[in-house]
Amino acid sequence: MNTAPISASPGSLEHPWENIQELIDSGDADQLFQYIDQMSPTETARAISRLSSEYQSRLFRLLSPSDAAEIIEDISDLQAADLIDDLPPKHAAAILEELDSDHLVDLLSEMDDEDAEAILEQMDPEDALEARQFMAFPSDTAGGLMISEFLSFTGDMTILDVLKDLQNNRQTYADYHVQYFYVTDKENHLTGVLRMHDLLFPKRSATLDSVMIRNPLKLAVETRLDQLRDFFEDHDLFGAPVVDKAGHLLGVVLPESVEEARRESAVRQFLGLSGIIGGEEFRTMPLLNRSGRRLSWLSLNIILNIIAASVIALYQDTLAAAITLAVFLPMVSDMSGCSGNQAVAVSMRELSLGLVRPNELLRVMRKEATLGIINGLALGILLGGVAYLWKGNPFLGLVVGGALAANTIVAVTLGGLLPLLLKKFKMDPALVSGPLLTTVTDMCGFFFVLSFASAILPRLG
Amino acid sequence: MNTAPISASPGSLEHPWENIQELIDSGDADQLFQYIDQMSPTETARAISRLSSEYQSRLFRLLSPSDAAEIIEDISDLQAADLIDDLPPKHAAAILEELDSDHLVDLLSEMDDEDAEAILEQMDPEDALEARQFMAFPSDTAGGLMISEFLSFTGDMTILDVLKDLQNNRQTYADYHVQYFYVTDKENHLTGVLRMHDLLFPKRSATLDSVMIRNPLKLAVETRLDQLRDFFEDHDLFGAPVVDKAGHLLGVVLPESVEEARRESAVRQFLGLSGIIGGEEFRTMPLLNRSGRRLSWLSLNIILNIIAASVIALYQDTLAAAITLAVFLPMVSDMSGCSGNQAVAVSMRELSLGLVRPNELLRVMRKEATLGIINGLALGILLGGVAYLWKGNPFLGLVVGGALAANTIVAVTLGGLLPLLLKKFKMDPALVSGPLLTTVTDMCGFFFVLSFASAILPRLG
Repeated sequence: MNTAPISASPGSLEHPWENIQELIDSGDADQLFQYIDQMSPTETARAISRLSSEYQSRLFRLLSPSDAAEIIEDISDLQAADLIDDLPPKHAAAILEELDSDHLVDLLSEMDDEDAEAILEQMDPEDALEARQFMAFPSDTAGGLMISEFLSFTGDMTILDVLKDLQNNRQTYADYHVQYFYVTDKENHLTGVLRMHDLLFPKRSATLDSVMIRNPLKLAVETRLDQLRDFFEDHDLFGAPVVDKAGHLLGVVLPESVEEARRESAVRQFLGLSGIIGGEEFRTMPLLNRSGRRLSWLSLNIILNIIAASVIALYQDTLAAAITLAVFLPMVSDMSGCSGNQAVAVSMRELSLGLVRPNELLRVMRKEATLGIINGLALGILLGGVAYLWKGNPFLGLVVGGALAANTIVAVTLGGLLPLLLKKFKMDPALVSGPLLTTVTDMCGFFFVLSFASAILPRLG
Repeated sequence: MNTAPISASPGSLEHPWENIQELIDSGDADQLFQYIDQMSPTETARAISRLSSEYQSRLFRLLSPSDAAEIIEDISDLQAADLIDDLPPKHAAAILEELDSDHLVDLLSEMDDEDAEAILEQMDPEDALEARQFMAFPSDTAGGLMISEFLSFTGDMTILDVLKDLQNNRQTYADYHVQYFYVTDKENHLTGVLRMHDLLFPKRSATLDSVMIRNPLKLAVETRLDQLRDFFEDHDLFGAPVVDKAGHLLGVVLPESVEEARRESAVRQFLGLSGIIGGEEFRTMPLLNRSGRRLSWLSLNIILNIIAASVIALYQDTLAAAITLAVFLPMVSDMSGCSGNQAVAVSMRELSLGLVRPNELLRVMRKEATLGIINGLALGILLGGVAYLWKGNPFLGLVVGGALAANTIVAVTLGGLLPLLLKKFKMDPALVSGPLLTTVTDMCGFFFVLSFASAILPRLG
């Protein structure tokens, strides 16, 4: 049996993907699966990402659908969707049917609509119908996070009926969420719940209706991620049933799915803020694909940059007359950008924790403006002092320091408000805050330095 | 009973903290707790954050330790540590003893060493000793994430002994992790494990040794977060025992603690990248505290900015002779900074997923340099074209476009490599990558524009 740390396994080989290639060439599916199965998920993900796309595709054709599905559980959704995309739809469908419904829907959502449709057509019609229904729910709601692999029985069944069913479907239920059994009426309305051990003690002839816990906790299908987090923090449960408006049982949300969705949303924030949009990027993706996605964000940025820099063009004569200012232009705009980004981060964090609401603009403005004044003065005195000492001209210090102070106040206040405003207008703060903030702080920074300088130009010479 | 969505509760009142203040003034501890208890965790956190520090402190003095502990479970560690810090150590100790060991240690770690020590001294000596031991483990390892609230029995005990113990300590075990029972020898070496239902079927006189699962899966106390993630992805368990080198049972790690630690690490990355360091910031913290922490990071940044901008000072004459370039200086450096940040984000993501290792510098360099060349050419042609069209001078286009192309290649390659290099030298990529990258791309950007311009200065006039 395994002892930890886990790394003491064949993954410590320098290049496990070379062994995988050999095993693919040998065509021995069993040995291939055994080799990959004893690697850790991280090692598996890394090794598969290093295979050429030809070998990746051969790997998944060689393995049985259930073995392939086990490997897919180890790697990220994006990586998995890429691999499955390349397979014949029929083979892809066979693999996907082995996954649980939440995972299946996540993978299909990562693909182009066309590719997903081709695979759905090859799936068992019932499974495909269910997948389409699940795909209709927004991914960060109870509907988007629920699974369909749970146990439900009608209330008129006896405990003996249930135990027999469990016995007969042992195989099928192996991957099910079995901490609770849900009880419904004939029309699939949720009426009660039973825990595993509730089956052990009553008479076997008792009906579920007579032993179940009535009016169980349940979640509306549209419950949002932050509400789901609250729910599972309030209630220490292994899962909760999801119902539609009419009370029909639709699925079960597990607390680990909620926690995973929260982590993914933190990752999306991080990537969005760094200018990686439209999903994750891995270095194993095709070069032109990666380049194109990065460029699409950069081209928007170049336009914003041109707008900001045009302020300098307006004041070209001032700048030519006091060329020393050129050194301070990028400093004032960069520093204010940093100050603004701090405020953006605090607002986004408070928003995601529910500590501030999008309509509390006045409170945030008051809080950030006071902080902006303090930090603006501190930084302005610092940079103004540096400018004065460098050139021995107090007026230069005044212009530069004053501009940084003024621009810090603007940047910090705007940075605090932007995420709230964007959220209010249903835009994604992680994607839009950064570029918008930088453009404004650049423009204002250039404007403050150059307009202050124009006002006292003779003294700067 | 509760039905979802959960928001339909008193939290929908505009200002629940006003009600809390009234209840504190009335001094009715029971009603106060009931009022807060039926709020969602998010609402609780928000309401408490809006109380004045005087009311916050009175709130926790009024409530019984166990009620206060329940509220602390709802709010973030940082917020909780702040509140507890203000209480008399004896009262704080009474509250903390109600928390599970993982949470207790997290809170103490958020405080100053002195404050934590004062509280530890007031705790039950045995609990305090345990807390000190737990605090010695790095927080992102099995030792730092484990809890001590699990059940273990020696193997010579019978099932009847265990059932009696469970009966007698019902109260104490209410908050324990009870999916598994761990079996040890007299010296506390882990020898086996039992699941809850393993107790139901054998004879009650059977010893645990005779019915347990031998050689259970276990984790070394130093197992790292990424290895823990792999472990729980490989093994579908509700918890795993943690042992030291000699095989003594120390604690139990739950998969939800691992997932939570992963999310917190994603949050730290996001905050670090935005210049919020030394832990989270909330707007309810004291103004000067917030201002000081932000300034400490900004002052480092101002120095880096001065270094970068000094390149402009070196080329002041060139700039004065071709003042149009001033418009393009910040554009070239900003755009390259953005390109570099994209590469930083991809590297940090691949590092955290284990898809790339810190010593794979050559591979990352090759991948990023090729992408840098493509994107550098694309952006260079774009910006060079803009410059040419604006001033009608092809040489200006050449200087600006060439500089952006060259600087993009530098920025993208460096951005890809920096996180790996920093990781190799045990520094935090989230904190250091951004400022370092920006400084270098600013310097290089200014240098490329101004040195290219110097070379063909007569043609730029």
